[in-house]
Amino acid sequence: MSSAAPRTAGQDRLWSVDEHLEDILTTVRPLEPIELQLLDAQGCVLVEDVTVPLSLPPFDNSSMDGYAVRVSDVAGASEEFPAVLAVVGDVAAGQADLLHVGPGQAARIMTGAPLPPGAETVVPVEWTDGGLGEGPAAGMRARAVAPEGAEGHVHVYRPAEARAHVRAKGSDVKSGDRALEAGTVLGPPQIALLAAIGRGTVRVRPRPRVVVMSTGSELVQPGEQLRSGQIYDSNSFALTAAARDAGAIAYRVGAVADDAETLRSTIEDQLVRADLLVTTGGVSVGAYDVVKEALSYVGDEDEPGSGVDFRKLAMQPGKPQGFGAIGPEHTPLLALPGNPVSSYVSFELFVRPAIRVLMGLDDVHRPRTRATLTTGKALTSPKGRRQFLRGTYADGSVTPVGGAGSHLVAALAHADALIVVPEDVESVEPGSEVEVVLLG
Amino acid sequence: MSSAAPRTAGQDRLWSVDEHLEDILTTVRPLEPIELQLLDAQGCVLVEDVTVPLSLPPFDNSSMDGYAVRVSDVAGASEEFPAVLAVVGDVAAGQADLLHVGPGQAARIMTGAPLPPGAETVVPVEWTDGGLGEGPAAGMRARAVAPEGAEGHVHVYRPAEARAHVRAKGSDVKSGDRALEAGTVLGPPQIALLAAIGRGTVRVRPRPRVVVMSTGSELVQPGEQLRSGQIYDSNSFALTAAARDAGAIAYRVGAVADDAETLRSTIEDQLVRADLLVTTGGVSVGAYDVVKEALSYVGDEDEPGSGVDFRKLAMQPGKPQGFGAIGPEHTPLLALPGNPVSSYVSFELFVRPAIRVLMGLDDVHRPRTRATLTTGKALTSPKGRRQFLRGTYADGSVTPVGGAGSHLVAALAHADALIVVPEDVESVEPGSEVEVVLLG
Repeated sequence: MSSAAPRTAGQDRLWSVDEHLEDILTTVRPLEPIELQLLDAQGCVLVEDVTVPLSLPPFDNSSMDGYAVRVSDVAGASEEFPAVLAVVGDVAAGQADLLHVGPGQAARIMTGAPLPPGAETVVPVEWTDGGLGEGPAAGMRARAVAPEGAEGHVHVYRPAEARAHVRAKGSDVKSGDRALEAGTVLGPPQIALLAAIGRGTVRVRPRPRVVVMSTGSELVQPGEQLRSGQIYDSNSFALTAAARDAGAIAYRVGAVADDAETLRSTIEDQLVRADLLVTTGGVSVGAYDVVKEALSYVGDEDEPGSGVDFRKLAMQPGKPQGFGAIGPEHTPLLALPGNPVSSYVSFELFVRPAIRVLMGLDDVHRPRTRATLTTGKALTSPKGRRQFLRGTYADGSVTPVGGAGSHLVAALAHADALIVVPEDVESVEPGSEVEVVLLG
Repeated sequence: MSSAAPRTAGQDRLWSVDEHLEDILTTVRPLEPIELQLLDAQGCVLVEDVTVPLSLPPFDNSSMDGYAVRVSDVAGASEEFPAVLAVVGDVAAGQADLLHVGPGQAARIMTGAPLPPGAETVVPVEWTDGGLGEGPAAGMRARAVAPEGAEGHVHVYRPAEARAHVRAKGSDVKSGDRALEAGTVLGPPQIALLAAIGRGTVRVRPRPRVVVMSTGSELVQPGEQLRSGQIYDSNSFALTAAARDAGAIAYRVGAVADDAETLRSTIEDQLVRADLLVTTGGVSVGAYDVVKEALSYVGDEDEPGSGVDFRKLAMQPGKPQGFGAIGPEHTPLLALPGNPVSSYVSFELFVRPAIRVLMGLDDVHRPRTRATLTTGKALTSPKGRRQFLRGTYADGSVTPVGGAGSHLVAALAHADALIVVPEDVESVEPGSEVEVVLLG
């Protein structure tokens, strides 16, 4: 009905939730990959197959603090008849110049240090006297306070097989192995592996930058004084938090007054830092629904993909929705309704998947399950609309919280699930099985 | 055995995993609460009961775009016999000065706008001709392009009960109601509620600042060239990422060489920004284990709670561990072993819970479940040690990945679970039920 909208076809029919979502998922494309420092890539999707450039460990090294020796020198050693070896020095981790261990000799070796030439095996310090001549040692004395530990003689009380307590070069990964495949989400263990094979940066899809703005002349910033007819802006806070929760870098612009020119210039101003724009309010059939009014002027209408389509969805809450692309880069924009519960439910159903598509994730949807409805009386739902009621889920049961009203933000704050009532169902009896979206 | 450690009693016995964890959980205290901006408090724990200071909605308002009218003026209205009312003007959301609606009059009203005095109910615009005289309207024309919609006459085609499409003052929450209880974790819906009731800031326990440093003269920054005997530092990257994942603000200091004086000064330097310090490496029985050597000098030994205790745990991987408090603020410090898998497993078991205790969370542990072991041959485990093997979990089954070696970081990157083999079990047959820690 808006005289300004360039694409009004969408208003002539009722879209299903699935059609609207499908339109979003097929239109929004993953962001172009960039090279990021390892820790900046946490939570991002790898776009390259990463091959191991060097074997891990890169050299044979000791898995224990002990003595690097020749097998034959400790053969048959016991507490009663220890092998007595000359200590030729220390091999510490990171040491480049290595001692040579000859017959009758031992090098004191630290965990992670390279097995020195000539040595064939490692005996843990607990199998020796640690050079102190006082029976089995519990450990070495610190080099700083007892430098004499790197010389003298050591008594070895047990034999060792060849390469005992030696981690072989390449026993973790070998040069040329596939470390990680493209598509892997980088969590702490994947970051550990990339660091271990020497990757300081990695090619991933970046976190999307999501700009959130609410619209409405009635909106006041929390903490300020309310005047007559005003309410606090909650949507821009809730959706900024929700966008971060979904993996985005979110910018809260805050509330914009119901003036098309102001909204238009704000959006144009924000485009430079937006991979996705989210607005709330101003999408319905009122005379002051400025999002509808303003968005027809943004961007080049001749460019394919530009323009925002305003629709009615067969859904409650969340009937009026806008989706399209704006500006020279065809930045995707989702225009959500203004009621707090409507905007939050719309975010969960449509914006969260869009953010996760931008990230290149395969898993874009909240998990769903089936649950038994625990409630005193039947739920009612309007025919022809898919209803999303707020509920709490536990152990296979879901209990509605609050009513169907889209302004019930208090109930929303105590919910952890959405109860889905399909379009063709008008009443759900207590004890029925229902579909549930887990809000996690 | 270290001559420098002030508290060596811990080295005389083997601690169980549970004893060590219990010591950490009873020693580490939640951080002092601070007042934070709403969006900065995301993920934090509320420490105050929040009471609603004003009713929501704060005034009766329209849930539809339509006309505010008197009930008797639209009684019996139909498409054949519409009620014809004089439009006295617009009531937009946020408007302070309200029209009075008298008999035979209607005010055009927008969703969220206050119900004006005199009006008793709202008829949606779709039940009217929208003032155009052309039968039922789909919506209003934008005020900016059709200002005449705020005057003239409207035809109403359906009656409305009193207070239809009116959201009553206080129908969401009432002044004095409990909005949220102390202990609530603030996610997007809770932030929505706090904003809606006008809270710009909120009192929460802040995210802990966790300083992560690895130690070892063999460690090189990823991206640099490896020389003989060197390996890449992966622990400081992995644990920084893991600390963020647990909810902390994490600072990666990187690798510190095996020199007690350097380590000591680095730790003293970092204390100012640390709520928790995590080190890796240097905690075993070698002659260059500088974490052990250095930490005895930090802090005032006379102060209760100061000092770090180095222990041997009945655990594989992760036998050597340090825990204590350092510096004038008794900042907790966890000293983890240096092998990448040992440090990561130790982080999951001990550091993650410590971070979550600092945050004031109740739920500090990773979820655990029981699963059927799917593997070709029996798992072996050393007697008297609780073993944590890496595995992949799906649908009630867990499959080991990689071996037991604590340097197998490649296998770790493909695991999503830890398989727990208890102290008294030396072999687990394929098909057995095992305990599993889900790494999420």
